[in-house]
Amino acid sequence: MPLMRTITGPTDLKRLTPRQVGILAQEIRDYLIESVSRTGGHLGPNLGVVELTIALHRVFNSPRDTLLFDTGHIAYVHKLLTGRHDFSTLRQQGGLSGYPSRTESDHDVIENSHASSSLSWAIGIAKARELQGETGRHTVAVIGDGALTGGMVWEALNNIAENRDLPLIIVINDNERSYAATRGGMADYLASLRATQEYEEVLSWGKRQLKRTPLVGRQVYETLHGMKKGLKDIVSPQGMFEDLGLKYLGPVDGHDVDAMETALRRAHDFGGVVLVHAITEKGHGYDPATQDEADRFHAVGVINPETGLPLELSGRSWTDEVSEEMVRLGKERPDIVAITASMLIPVGLQPFAERFPDRVFDVGIAEQHAVAMAAGLSYAGLHPVVCIYSTFLNRAFDQLLMDCALHRQGVTFVLDRAGVTGTDGASHNGMWDLTLLGMVPGIHVAAPRDGQQVARALREAVAIEDAPSVLRFPKGTVSAPIEAVRRHGTVDVLRDVEGAADAADGPVDLVLVGAGAMAVTALEIADKLYAEGRSVMVVDPRWVLPVSEDLVELARNARHVGVVEDALVGGLAGRITEALAAADVRVPVHAYGIPHEFLDHGSRGQVLDRVGLTADPIATSLAAQLA
Amino acid sequence: MPLMRTITGPTDLKRLTPRQVGILAQEIRDYLIESVSRTGGHLGPNLGVVELTIALHRVFNSPRDTLLFDTGHIAYVHKLLTGRHDFSTLRQQGGLSGYPSRTESDHDVIENSHASSSLSWAIGIAKARELQGETGRHTVAVIGDGALTGGMVWEALNNIAENRDLPLIIVINDNERSYAATRGGMADYLASLRATQEYEEVLSWGKRQLKRTPLVGRQVYETLHGMKKGLKDIVSPQGMFEDLGLKYLGPVDGHDVDAMETALRRAHDFGGVVLVHAITEKGHGYDPATQDEADRFHAVGVINPETGLPLELSGRSWTDEVSEEMVRLGKERPDIVAITASMLIPVGLQPFAERFPDRVFDVGIAEQHAVAMAAGLSYAGLHPVVCIYSTFLNRAFDQLLMDCALHRQGVTFVLDRAGVTGTDGASHNGMWDLTLLGMVPGIHVAAPRDGQQVARALREAVAIEDAPSVLRFPKGTVSAPIEAVRRHGTVDVLRDVEGAADAADGPVDLVLVGAGAMAVTALEIADKLYAEGRSVMVVDPRWVLPVSEDLVELARNARHVGVVEDALVGGLAGRITEALAAADVRVPVHAYGIPHEFLDHGSRGQVLDRVGLTADPIATSLAAQLA
Repeated sequence: MPLMRTITGPTDLKRLTPRQVGILAQEIRDYLIESVSRTGGHLGPNLGVVELTIALHRVFNSPRDTLLFDTGHIAYVHKLLTGRHDFSTLRQQGGLSGYPSRTESDHDVIENSHASSSLSWAIGIAKARELQGETGRHTVAVIGDGALTGGMVWEALNNIAENRDLPLIIVINDNERSYAATRGGMADYLASLRATQEYEEVLSWGKRQLKRTPLVGRQVYETLHGMKKGLKDIVSPQGMFEDLGLKYLGPVDGHDVDAMETALRRAHDFGGVVLVHAITEKGHGYDPATQDEADRFHAVGVINPETGLPLELSGRSWTDEVSEEMVRLGKERPDIVAITASMLIPVGLQPFAERFPDRVFDVGIAEQHAVAMAAGLSYAGLHPVVCIYSTFLNRAFDQLLMDCALHRQGVTFVLDRAGVTGTDGASHNGMWDLTLLGMVPGIHVAAPRDGQQVARALREAVAIEDAPSVLRFPKGTVSAPIEAVRRHGTVDVLRDVEGAADAADGPVDLVLVGAGAMAVTALEIADKLYAEGRSVMVVDPRWVLPVSEDLVELARNARHVGVVEDALVGGLAGRITEALAAADVRVPVHAYGIPHEFLDHGSRGQVLDRVGLTADPIATSLAAQLA
Repeated sequence: MPLMRTITGPTDLKRLTPRQVGILAQEIRDYLIESVSRTGGHLGPNLGVVELTIALHRVFNSPRDTLLFDTGHIAYVHKLLTGRHDFSTLRQQGGLSGYPSRTESDHDVIENSHASSSLSWAIGIAKARELQGETGRHTVAVIGDGALTGGMVWEALNNIAENRDLPLIIVINDNERSYAATRGGMADYLASLRATQEYEEVLSWGKRQLKRTPLVGRQVYETLHGMKKGLKDIVSPQGMFEDLGLKYLGPVDGHDVDAMETALRRAHDFGGVVLVHAITEKGHGYDPATQDEADRFHAVGVINPETGLPLELSGRSWTDEVSEEMVRLGKERPDIVAITASMLIPVGLQPFAERFPDRVFDVGIAEQHAVAMAAGLSYAGLHPVVCIYSTFLNRAFDQLLMDCALHRQGVTFVLDRAGVTGTDGASHNGMWDLTLLGMVPGIHVAAPRDGQQVARALREAVAIEDAPSVLRFPKGTVSAPIEAVRRHGTVDVLRDVEGAADAADGPVDLVLVGAGAMAVTALEIADKLYAEGRSVMVVDPRWVLPVSEDLVELARNARHVGVVEDALVGGLAGRITEALAAADVRVPVHAYGIPHEFLDHGSRGQVLDRVGLTADPIATSLAAQLA
């Protein structure tokens, strides 16, 4: 039996000899490559934290001590070490979550996949334990160098610096790249810390000295620290953390279990807040990953484990459409610039960046800044396009509202991965955007139904200079092109009922709005209702917000309006209801969307099916309303 | 004629002799004390930046150079210096805005009053100018030490550090207090910078040396800087900013126009990013303000200018109710803790803090961290109460959703200043919360209608341990208590129609929901509709979300439902519509709320009147619907 299978928790792990630890690390690495190749998942990041995670569980006692994994996708090794050995159903419906999950284990705490939150959780937990007199319980947050660029980290560090007696350990998992190479001043600073080889030598000398002396715990640290202080100006630029009053330990080789254990034990025994700076390599031990500059192994689909190449070639994606149109627009308009929050490749900006390197800004995992900076760029005469996953716009709602919309800045938002994304679980679904955007005065929102419409909407969006404009589309492969049978003003009529638009022939039973990719579903629904003898017109407003006058007019000549949106129910339907009320059109609006709940992981199709956002149940419901 | 009246812009200012500048500063200070005492406004912060602002306008050329005022309330002096001399209608409808306003002046850029955004705007503007080849235009952001605790600043600094050749100057207005004494590691760090008197002496020696040498611009700076570098470890701990690669200049006495001008000119000539650290005193030159520990002069109502005491005693506020109930609850339940983002006094937590100093956390202007930390506190067994202005919750929506709600943490939010606040303009209105909260799965939201209900709702909220709970209430004086005439399950019936609840008597014309403080308006509307012979039942669901079964039942026996909310229209009405649809109750819901627009400043009453959120227009509209 492989050693890995015998480990069901920290106690088992602590029994291992150093040699066994080495074997275990290799087993885990092999298993991850083999199993994640088959299921897809965050391969590279987890290969980078094998030894680090083993060391954590050998030094600390989870769940009595609390281990927090920032951004969550680096918890695979943690899962393996806490008894979850079957990764065959990773990220599949009913299978293991790709993130920590409290329903899976008491060892898991933060399920949220949004970056930079772990330090806030950590001080909350540590402070609560202190107030309740629960001494001796440590809180450990593992956070990547990329997540350090997020503003929440700054807010938390600032607060932690006021509470430096808490038993709180921050492990910086520094692989010099989050999704891609980490950007900005913080990255430079970490690089300068890494560069201090002299300091490493001094540190190992210090360790040798310490082995000969009977000092323990805080005293050990203070000695080392005092020494560091004295030598600081010669060998170590760790000033920033120390300026905030935080103890700093490192850099440590994150792939040396022994070194990591020593550093963590010292941090454990110190009795106050300590930063442990671990240097790791994303994809460590897997050549296809470590040799890949484009960072494709951050999250992989199903791949060949030997070569690292995808086994299935997926079709043309929604993102591809944006990617190409951005380059075309970039050539035509020198005022167009692009912003990404550490997602250059996933949002399709790489070709634009190659062509216009000065006109793309990767600001780190910093959505708030990205959006407020866009307001500034717009004020000074450029037209910024902020390319961002829909779910991460939640982080920058205030900036969209107060910096962009209030100032009527012409900023375009490309919301990728909108609607149900599926396998990454509750916090990755881009289901909140339509309600959120619907709150913003003056905003223009497009929901393109196919690839052609993506390019068209983007082109129209960047022409809007006096308000924020948005396009949103789902993850994955584009829908086949759907031609309009006719146009009613700005509204594309996708399916018409003979004479239905003519008031003389009496009202149509139903005007059905299929927002964006849900146009396909709307057409299927219409087929079912036609079979029942109902007159149905399927429309795509293209620009869903503001609600178009033309759509209101079509509704005026209908008995019912139906709205199908791949977003929180009522986001768009609610705004259509208001528009009809304002125009005194008294037609009931039936809203179909995602219910107000967090969605467990599964494929996009499975999740849509689970929440009833498919043709059959909606057609049944509408048939009852029309009856 | 006072000198102040002759200044209509930077050109006039540049002509003044040093003696005249001193006279001008005094005139401005006198004018602010006299006029803001009469109108109310941000007195203390503006008294602190008189000299700093004069120096800014003497060194830079606005609007060619761009001056950005973070959080906006420190722009009064800037307004006076750019031709806006009449403060008699400050913050009143049709009068001067209390913040920068583009409609008032080309010298104004950021109108948003939410903190910590200016550095993001600054790099956006500077970067756009660079790309467009507009050399020689400087961008200057003035930011308080309090705002430095906001995460956006970190995100922006990190990005600015990558662009250190931009002509971008960051002036830190360090008064050691934002709303109150600034908290956290950043504050300690700034204090250590302030404490370096030796450094100041070295600096003035450096200045004397420079006067004798022909160096200019970047050379001057580099000389000084090189000197600093060499002396750094002896006299100056400015390491953090320098670790990020940013040039640091200071500290400078912010009340010494000459010193400020010298520092700013040096920064101007440097040709790259420079931080200028100015030490100022909030309320400088006005004894009632500088001697007030409680920081009451941050924003004042109408006061006696001699004594600084309020002229009108306002009644009991909504905040007072929370304040007292928090202390009661704190005594009963040791697990209750409170969190504020730099607003301890305004949100009423001072009494709780005095009684339970270990159980209140002021985390700085850091809403994201405050909310995520609350999730951690809750996870580890405490019940946190996050007291925050409604408008600032927008900054922490992602944390409410992903950290609190996804994890089903029992965290209570007290949203003060919800709905129309009025005089502080568009960005202070707490009008977004009901729609935002309505998106959050599992959340419980109370809208108390009077002071008694505030205390009751708070007590009920902290009893909810498996989901976030929220209460929201407006700014100002509590409504007179409104007794329920009866209860229908969880719903308080405030006005009943004889027999109306009895289905046997046939349906009531209208069930009218008055959310929170709008209960008063709902009662007035009912009076008007009674006069027209309509049967109306006025109800207060108390807990507006989730929509109660009892409300749905009442609606089932009505011809129409009306919803009046002091929030974006449809926030609550939309959720009621969905609940009725889910229960197959086919009754039209008529929504009355704030339209989707940004609201110019004015009194709360004026603004409500302007948007039609008063009894007359709503009664007229409803009468038409019922007809």
